Amino acid sequence: MELMDPAPTLNDIKNAARRIKPFAHRTPVLTSQSINRIVGANLYFKCENFQKTGSFKFRGAVNAVLSLPDKIVRKDVATHSSGNHAAALSLAARLCGFTAHIVMPENAPAVKIRAVAGYGGKITFCKPNLKAREQTLEKVLRNTGARMIHPYNDPAVIAGQGTAALELLAEGPELDILLTPVGGGSLLSGTALAVTESRPQIHVIGVEPQQADDACRSFRSGKLIPVTNPDTIADGLRTSLGSLTFPIIKKRVHDIVTVSEAGIIQAMRLVWERMKIIIEPSAAVPIAAVLEKKLPVERKRIGVILSGGNIDLDHLPWHPAKPKSEEDLNEC
Amino acid sequence: MELMDPAPTLNDIKNAARRIKPFAHRTPVLTSQSINRIVGANLYFKCENFQKTGSFKFRGAVNAVLSLPDKIVRKDVATHSSGNHAAALSLAARLCGFTAHIVMPENAPAVKIRAVAGYGGKITFCKPNLKAREQTLEKVLRNTGARMIHPYNDPAVIAGQGTAALELLAEGPELDILLTPVGGGSLLSGTALAVTESRPQIHVIGVEPQQADDACRSFRSGKLIPVTNPDTIADGLRTSLGSLTFPIIKKRVHDIVTVSEAGIIQAMRLVWERMKIIIEPSAAVPIAAVLEKKLPVERKRIGVILSGGNIDLDHLPWHPAKPKSEEDLNEC
Repeated sequence: MELMDPAPTLNDIKNAARRIKPFAHRTPVLTSQSINRIVGANLYFKCENFQKTGSFKFRGAVNAVLSLPDKIVRKDVATHSSGNHAAALSLAARLCGFTAHIVMPENAPAVKIRAVAGYGGKITFCKPNLKAREQTLEKVLRNTGARMIHPYNDPAVIAGQGTAALELLAEGPELDILLTPVGGGSLLSGTALAVTESRPQIHVIGVEPQQADDACRSFRSGKLIPVTNPDTIADGLRTSLGSLTFPIIKKRVHDIVTVSEAGIIQAMRLVWERMKIIIEPSAAVPIAAVLEKKLPVERKRIGVILSGGNIDLDHLPWHPAKPKSEEDLNEC
Repeated sequence: MELMDPAPTLNDIKNAARRIKPFAHRTPVLTSQSINRIVGANLYFKCENFQKTGSFKFRGAVNAVLSLPDKIVRKDVATHSSGNHAAALSLAARLCGFTAHIVMPENAPAVKIRAVAGYGGKITFCKPNLKAREQTLEKVLRNTGARMIHPYNDPAVIAGQGTAALELLAEGPELDILLTPVGGGSLLSGTALAVTESRPQIHVIGVEPQQADDACRSFRSGKLIPVTNPDTIADGLRTSLGSLTFPIIKKRVHDIVTVSEAGIIQAMRLVWERMKIIIEPSAAVPIAAVLEKKLPVERKRIGVILSGGNIDLDHLPWHPAKPKSEEDLNEC
């Protein structure tokens, strides 16, 4: 076990922004008059669904790869996430000239396997349980000399995720509220670090599914309360907060609210229909909080980080014959 | 029957651009590295799926409403289209302070009825056949004094549609080829008028479904050959060329090619997955031509007008239980 790095600072996020600039997209900030009319507020959507690999995770992954110590010559990396972080890390490593080793359960959905392989990730399959994953990852790390890049509990990852909020603030709108989804907490903590020092008047609020409400319960109780096997359509948010993200969130985030599964699906469909852009369920979670009036939104200027757009088009939530999700549980 | 107006000119399109500017979105031009890699060409997508009412049709509709003679005091308008033109005309009329009267078959899909009503169109239902539609429209015109705005065979509509290409050219890429889908031909003829005079080196090419290939057959034979009841998923392209659009296309368009239904679906899904934007089947038709190598694309710079993004999310073409389309035939 390595010693935990300290929390990153606003300066780390500014450095991350400079570092990742040649690699990451500066994603657009979109608005929708019709959604604004429906919710009675002005929403500014930071479109990380248009980010490379289809999610904000690319920011943290490429910042982490670029932040590896200079003394390491062969900067291969590894992880046992099989979701957006795995795809992001695979491309980040490839663009920097290295290899990402991804441990995936052998029953991972084909669409995820294709994504990781398509971005150049080298996949090692394991039995579909946490112990097998950890053991397999250990073996991969030993055999390859790769560095483990944690999907959220890593200062360089957190700093990278914070760059999306920096870009949103730079686009101009004077926000009252900034919303992000919460899973492992790297996006929320990075966003809070990016915003609260320079713009303390902006309330940074995390939103998560009621059915995976560990962050909300941890935030309210002051103690880290993990969830196990939460059942939510928001597959990016099934993880619990980490030891590094939780203290930042406790200190800097204004509130955490929860939303229903029906609200998530409704919000996702609203964005697809009105904005003609594809967002994944996790990205719809903050919009569900606005629709369900989980916060005082009226006439407010609200930034929303649309976290990603990766979704299996064969299994949409309003699809009448949707089978029970086969996803594994750790989809960050 | 009124006398047919003459074909619009490049100058008419420039005037239309000035006229519609306060009302229409200047839509973005997007690119996708991953699609470029797949097709071996550089594609520039003019995103009319982000246009008001979700399609380029808004440009022609609002230009037509704003071009009505000054002597008319109450500039109400009418049409018997029930597709994107109906939605576009409804909003165009409302934004200009008037009413659009829309004649729709009583079996029109609920999603289309909601769209037209949502944009303020006043709907009159009729039996689902062409004769009933025409008779009902005649009655509406008599009773309301509204002016009929044809979905494509109207000079002001054609000039309005041409403004999308003007904006695309102004964004900078030096194009070799510019592709649009062809249904009634207002987008293709307007595009050709906007492009061929000032940039004769650009080949303007129309693309249509093999299963609705009237424009291709008309273009090759030199005679207007209408189709009846074509069976294609590209619901915006089931109409035949008009007496006004065909001569422009014959004179100015370089070629018309056709694509398969499977190619349309594949192209649409590719854009959804890689670009995270929603396009309707008709908008995917030109991309299918690139994927199916229906034209020499290698290393070319190709503009594509993504015509619209209106699709019933409950009935996607890769949906296993897709029922036979209930759409009526005249969906421009």
